[in-house]
Amino acid sequence: MSLIAHSVSDFIRTLQALSGILEKGAASAQARKIDPLVLTSSRLAPDMFALARQVQIACDVAKNGFSRLSGVEAPKFEDTETTFEELQARIAKTIDFLRHIKTESLVGSEDKVVSFPAGPERVLKMKGDAYLKQWVFPNLYFHTVTAYNILRHNGVDVGKMDYLKGADLLP
Amino acid sequence: MSLIAHSVSDFIRTLQALSGILEKGAASAQARKIDPLVLTSSRLAPDMFALARQVQIACDVAKNGFSRLSGVEAPKFEDTETTFEELQARIAKTIDFLRHIKTESLVGSEDKVVSFPAGPERVLKMKGDAYLKQWVFPNLYFHTVTAYNILRHNGVDVGKMDYLKGADLLP
Repeated sequence: MSLIAHSVSDFIRTLQALSGILEKGAASAQARKIDPLVLTSSRLAPDMFALARQVQIACDVAKNGFSRLSGVEAPKFEDTETTFEELQARIAKTIDFLRHIKTESLVGSEDKVVSFPAGPERVLKMKGDAYLKQWVFPNLYFHTVTAYNILRHNGVDVGKMDYLKGADLLP
Repeated sequence: MSLIAHSVSDFIRTLQALSGILEKGAASAQARKIDPLVLTSSRLAPDMFALARQVQIACDVAKNGFSRLSGVEAPKFEDTETTFEELQARIAKTIDFLRHIKTESLVGSEDKVVSFPAGPERVLKMKGDAYLKQWVFPNLYFHTVTAYNILRHNGVDVGKMDYLKGADLLP
């Protein structure tokens, strides 16, 4: 199995970890009697994206990245999620898309040239393997860790093991 | 070249990006007449590590990860850095260590069982390839993005392209 096909599981595991982190966020809001929308609309700087948008982008990075590499069309999302439940549904749909990508569709994707938008006006190009390792993975982690940091900054009791959850530890 | 040998460059590129982000932090402190130590000792939550510690750990993740995978002893750092200059020196020493790892020393590391501490009392074990992909990489990105977020939260003008810098874009 190629590096890229092998990496699908890393995206699923990380999105599952993000889902667990958001669950803790929702539980914390309930326990502390905070409107959950305060957390999902929280941000680390006035000109940074809020939590909900970070989660939306983490999902997009995964689905669009593998759509471009595999040639399989990704589901379209309307970017209307504001609640924890809606964000969980988006993550679940993204994981479902990733699970249905067939290994065969990724054959040769390492050497394929991938074009992708970076901001509203720029289109960038990379070779498939570099795109995955230097763009898609770092972006997935960027938005997942920022989501984590927003919740942590707002007093949610998450720890790094929530983020690393699902790693294949040996007995 | 194996997946693991091929990954050394991803660690170097990410640490270089972290170095550039810290440079912007230092420049911002100077421009805004802020004591730079205010930034390096800043954190996102009272029980999270401050910026300096995030950078120290990002370096340790890289050097200890590749030390365990290659069997090459890593340099020891005293964890005394507090200034931007000292943090830059630590990053430079870490990159230098990574650059000197010979490809041959990583042959077979995918299947090697790696033991590593997780906190003061626990030792975990993983197979080399899982250790790299599910532990070392996510940890590198975790501490790099958290360092970025701490500076961003403190008004430093960094953007995601600073973090993604060095990606092999095609013309």
